[in-house]
Amino acid sequence: MADYEHILVKRDGDTVTITMNRAARRNSLTADHLTELRDAFAEAGESDATGIVLAADGPVFSAGHDFGDVSSRDLTGVRELLQLCTDLMRTVQSVPQIVVARVHGLATAAGCQLVASCDLAVAAESAGFALPGGKGGWFCHTPAVPVARSIGRKRLMEMALTGDAVDAATAERWGLVNRVVPDDELDDAVAELLARATRGSRASKSLGKQTLYAQLDRPEADAYQVALEVMASASQLPGAREGMAAFLEKRHPEWPD
Amino acid sequence: MADYEHILVKRDGDTVTITMNRAARRNSLTADHLTELRDAFAEAGESDATGIVLAADGPVFSAGHDFGDVSSRDLTGVRELLQLCTDLMRTVQSVPQIVVARVHGLATAAGCQLVASCDLAVAAESAGFALPGGKGGWFCHTPAVPVARSIGRKRLMEMALTGDAVDAATAERWGLVNRVVPDDELDDAVAELLARATRGSRASKSLGKQTLYAQLDRPEADAYQVALEVMASASQLPGAREGMAAFLEKRHPEWPD
Amino acid sequence: MADYEHILVKRDGDTVTITMNRAARRNSLTADHLTELRDAFAEAGESDATGIVLAADGPVFSAGHDFGDVSSRDLTGVRELLQLCTDLMRTVQSVPQIVVARVHGLATAAGCQLVASCDLAVAAESAGFALPGGKGGWFCHTPAVPVARSIGRKRLMEMALTGDAVDAATAERWGLVNRVVPDDELDDAVAELLARATRGSRASKSLGKQTLYAQLDRPEADAYQVALEVMASASQLPGAREGMAAFLEKRHPEWPD
Repeated sequence: MADYEHILVKRDGDTVTITMNRAARRNSLTADHLTELRDAFAEAGESDATGIVLAADGPVFSAGHDFGDVSSRDLTGVRELLQLCTDLMRTVQSVPQIVVARVHGLATAAGCQLVASCDLAVAAESAGFALPGGKGGWFCHTPAVPVARSIGRKRLMEMALTGDAVDAATAERWGLVNRVVPDDELDDAVAELLARATRGSRASKSLGKQTLYAQLDRPEADAYQVALEVMASASQLPGAREGMAAFLEKRHPEWPD
Repeated sequence: MADYEHILVKRDGDTVTITMNRAARRNSLTADHLTELRDAFAEAGESDATGIVLAADGPVFSAGHDFGDVSSRDLTGVRELLQLCTDLMRTVQSVPQIVVARVHGLATAAGCQLVASCDLAVAAESAGFALPGGKGGWFCHTPAVPVARSIGRKRLMEMALTGDAVDAATAERWGLVNRVVPDDELDDAVAELLARATRGSRASKSLGKQTLYAQLDRPEADAYQVALEVMASASQLPGAREGMAAFLEKRHPEWPD
Repeated sequence: MADYEHILVKRDGDTVTITMNRAARRNSLTADHLTELRDAFAEAGESDATGIVLAADGPVFSAGHDFGDVSSRDLTGVRELLQLCTDLMRTVQSVPQIVVARVHGLATAAGCQLVASCDLAVAAESAGFALPGGKGGWFCHTPAVPVARSIGRKRLMEMALTGDAVDAATAERWGLVNRVVPDDELDDAVAELLARATRGSRASKSLGKQTLYAQLDRPEADAYQVALEVMASASQLPGAREGMAAFLEKRHPEWPD
């Protein structure tokens, strides 16, 4: 694997864990940090791993952009930074692996955006979520994009306009994370959810994930056009063939990839 | 009414009940079964009934597609099957009657899609909901389309990627069904909800249902363009005229159709 | 301020409170009342206030359109009325101030639409919400547009098709309002939420609100295109510059506008 300065990348079985490792800087997202995260996701995406965990070291999950990095940039420079950040979010959604955010501590601004952009998220009871641009200066315009697609409109408005943090239980109730567990059960809960989300045919699961993002926020008739064509083609793939054969023959499937 | 092999169709007052009657095959959806369901909905749609209940016989609500039927088909054949299935879902949403799913037992894959596609749904405490393609072989691409439009994104990802069932209480909390009742109160709860949802002018209610689907998942400005024109025209219809006159004259309305 | 007949407009500090003042007519929305509300929102929108509270006098928040006004209109006349009503909703969303609905009593039809169209909403425990066109005559087509964008699809169907009211706690659970408080704490809760939602740079907050509505119900990739360009430009505005400088210098920000 590539050599990284700001993150740790570890492969364990079928899972790649990418850990933000700038605890002293609250895992803030400088251009270098964002680039490493994007490259690590892309690299994991080309591997034969089936799952990716996005984790963080230190008391804060991620504080979002690093104002020391942003404040010195002109319009073109900030635009490049935000384009890089958006590329990271797209990469998280486009890799064939299932991506789970392992969230402890505060996830704010682009850090909250990362959680919203992962396929699944498990939060420790200590976690909190905020779009703090709402407190005053630089509004969280892009972080609000995936957060708006996870929670209801009034709740999005409250998070985006007040900038205040919501606790983990509220985040679960609103649909921003899949579950909340005591802090010392966080690793087990992440592993358990990821195991269930990655079992089966890897090709089938990857196509499934990518097609979900292709259809999710389109009018229903458009979504059906996408999903129907993919599902028809997918029926002819080895994974689907084996799944159906195993079911009909009442035996455990042996996934072809 | 037409003669059906796989379903039972019963008219009782203003309600047509369509019951999947392949209990021994877990009400799986072969092409023949799908065709009968679509035809029965279309036939009920042309009747003067005001409500339709979609129910199922036996311990399972519906297990979705019949792998015995799917596995022998080539790409063109599966595409035809999925097109038929999508036609059924569209028919459920386009008939002028209000459609309530009466769900007991497991509703999986296209069976879960049916529940998500009905206007309203009441579940027994014994009910469960799953997109089991997430367990391995043939991903539930098309079932995920209406499920995604009923529940939040993270929850959709969990259902679609893990394939595991959620219980009735969770389905209610996530918005996949309208209410959960003890199994022995299911028929009463369905009748009570349907009675409230079908009262009033039939023409007004039908136009209302169909316009909701036309505007639901479009940008708000587009949705207003549709809804405003329909609502202006609807104000001139006998139902609206009678409703307003009765209100102003402090009497019970006598619906014209 | 302009002279109004049907509403009261009061400026207190940075907040404009617009109060529907037709208690004897259950704050129903005649063309004159709608025009005054729209004009008052537009006037407040041009002021240097940072927040707007929409409140109501009397036991009912608002009963929606006045059937005495509607029933005498032909198609063109109703169309004009609905266009005016839609203009009001758009004005609420387009003014640079943060708008909070202060809801007590029943908010029905276009009254419920008003609550759904405000950026934030606080409800008293006595509040209720309904789309009563579902009971029979004139379906609530346009009120359903913003309500559908606040709550889940099955819940929208239940409200729109049955016409029955949901209580304040249910409205909060479904995401139609941000919070529910005892009736005698309503004013404090509105003021507290509005204070948090309006602090900071006014220019930044306004741009934030308006960009949220521009991106909210579009496909995610489209939404990112909007949000990214706005956020890059916003980084160069005085509010963002001061917010980042204050953070880096560990001092309280002094907002430039």
